[in-house]
Amino acid sequence: MNRQIVLTSRPDGVPCQENFRVVETPLDEPGDGQVLIRHTFLGLAPSARLRMSEESSYAQPLALGDVVYGQAVGEVVKSHAPSLREGDTVMSVRGGWQQYSVAAASDLVKVDPEVAPPSVWLGALGTSGMTAYVGLLDLGKPREGETVVVSAASGGVGAMVGQIARLKGCRVVGIAGGEAKAHHVVETLGFDAGIDYRNPDFAFRLKAACPDGVHVYFENVGGSVRDAVWPLMNQGGRIVVCGLIAEYNEGRQAGPGWFGILAKRLTVRGFIMGDHLNRRDDFLRDMGAWYRAGDIHAQEDVSEGLDSVVPAFIRMLTGGNFGKTVVKL
Amino acid sequence: MNRQIVLTSRPDGVPCQENFRVVETPLDEPGDGQVLIRHTFLGLAPSARLRMSEESSYAQPLALGDVVYGQAVGEVVKSHAPSLREGDTVMSVRGGWQQYSVAAASDLVKVDPEVAPPSVWLGALGTSGMTAYVGLLDLGKPREGETVVVSAASGGVGAMVGQIARLKGCRVVGIAGGEAKAHHVVETLGFDAGIDYRNPDFAFRLKAACPDGVHVYFENVGGSVRDAVWPLMNQGGRIVVCGLIAEYNEGRQAGPGWFGILAKRLTVRGFIMGDHLNRRDDFLRDMGAWYRAGDIHAQEDVSEGLDSVVPAFIRMLTGGNFGKTVVKL
Repeated sequence: MNRQIVLTSRPDGVPCQENFRVVETPLDEPGDGQVLIRHTFLGLAPSARLRMSEESSYAQPLALGDVVYGQAVGEVVKSHAPSLREGDTVMSVRGGWQQYSVAAASDLVKVDPEVAPPSVWLGALGTSGMTAYVGLLDLGKPREGETVVVSAASGGVGAMVGQIARLKGCRVVGIAGGEAKAHHVVETLGFDAGIDYRNPDFAFRLKAACPDGVHVYFENVGGSVRDAVWPLMNQGGRIVVCGLIAEYNEGRQAGPGWFGILAKRLTVRGFIMGDHLNRRDDFLRDMGAWYRAGDIHAQEDVSEGLDSVVPAFIRMLTGGNFGKTVVKL
Repeated sequence: MNRQIVLTSRPDGVPCQENFRVVETPLDEPGDGQVLIRHTFLGLAPSARLRMSEESSYAQPLALGDVVYGQAVGEVVKSHAPSLREGDTVMSVRGGWQQYSVAAASDLVKVDPEVAPPSVWLGALGTSGMTAYVGLLDLGKPREGETVVVSAASGGVGAMVGQIARLKGCRVVGIAGGEAKAHHVVETLGFDAGIDYRNPDFAFRLKAACPDGVHVYFENVGGSVRDAVWPLMNQGGRIVVCGLIAEYNEGRQAGPGWFGILAKRLTVRGFIMGDHLNRRDDFLRDMGAWYRAGDIHAQEDVSEGLDSVVPAFIRMLTGGNFGKTVVKL
């Protein structure tokens, strides 16, 4: 049997345990070209929250009763695909919050344990890392010596954005919730500065940390965090809108006026990683090399067991996680 | 002597005659590589309004007492530059609101009367046309069959945006103030639809005119016009922020929320033509060919005499003009 977490009602703001239920269903049988995967790790990401609302966004909303969308790493336990064997480890972008899934081999990334352990293929080498890679490099286009600011800086995507920006020779300023995270992004991840947005002097400290203004802002949060970065943007600055956690929790907010966009010739660009899959080989090559060289630290926030998925997800959305949120099954 | 219009006080909202004064000064003498130009036409553009405020924007603010910034076409009356002779006609981006100016030959565009008459080098073949060309083609990147919406559609830039988009095979919807202008962009400029934003059914009519949604929005206005276009934007839509006349007149406004930018992967990009001067040769080649072939209609709103400059400028900012605003001297 397969234990699955399904959506039973739509959250209003931050989700709660009552929005979900665990169900047991018989295992699916892999068809031609498909494999059955036994999940060993699930990767949680804020974007799953978007799919829980009825409102249309880039992602198809989940129907009530659907298994919740999410990434998984696991072991192939039955293969009807020539390219994968039983015992191989794979990463599935659409594995879902469950113990097992069936997927076409062509939709899976084969995990190479020589490069990194399995759970890292959900973070640094998974969708979080690739989101950071394409968002920062292809859309933010930072140049050496420029200042890159990233919000949710210690989270799965933010930590990768900052570390890649450092490798590209940028000054990196991370915004995070709490002094411990602000400290972590400097001490462990090598950012130039970490700023706690809960500090009453947040805007002042952020400005002081960006003496040359902000060339690239990688947006994961929105709300008051964005409002503090906005006036610091330089002429020709680029803003990559990857996520808006504050709005997932607190509802929609107005944006800054467009006069700043005009006066500073800013580019504000929303994106999703799935539009840039043609960059996967480049990403795996570069990030794999950086990880193996010890240039990328993959901080993980690990819980255990399917029953810990919903609590870990809620903790992540409210800033209680520390690093990429994964659940070991 | 040279009669000049100088800024004497900073306008609050829409400028008035009292913000300016006419002064007479002796003619400047052209230095080495420079020429003296007797202006025959001035071209007025809303962006001049930005330079009248103290607030920093992409343009250096005018100091009180400065000659107002603006484009001019004129005749070379004295040349110390080998590439230009007395009697040549030139366009100067920084000619200013005055009867004469001195400029380096390298900063001037030589007017070819075989291609178009002098005043057209201020509009279709001038900064308005080039702003439309680079903004639409390089930033908006419309594809054949896509829907392009442009605001201030009968104005100097808007009329060019729409006509270029038509030449590229797009469906073009123009937004303008009043039924006469809305009619004009369809009947004379060949747009697919023209919508009067003053009509109480504006938002409804706009939606009806965009059955496939909006792929590219070329923004000249802001405010309630932008708010009506915003919900019609398609996934992957591009918004080119060229001007915000409503905000020049009515003050700064909040922007739409960023959730839409994220959910629809929109790109919102402010720009100024001056960042794209490397495209001038392409622009002059393409636009010159289109104009000569009769594919571009250059509607002009012509006043006469230096004393008509300020009234024409005010009329343009409040929507009383019809086509590119030029003043014949």
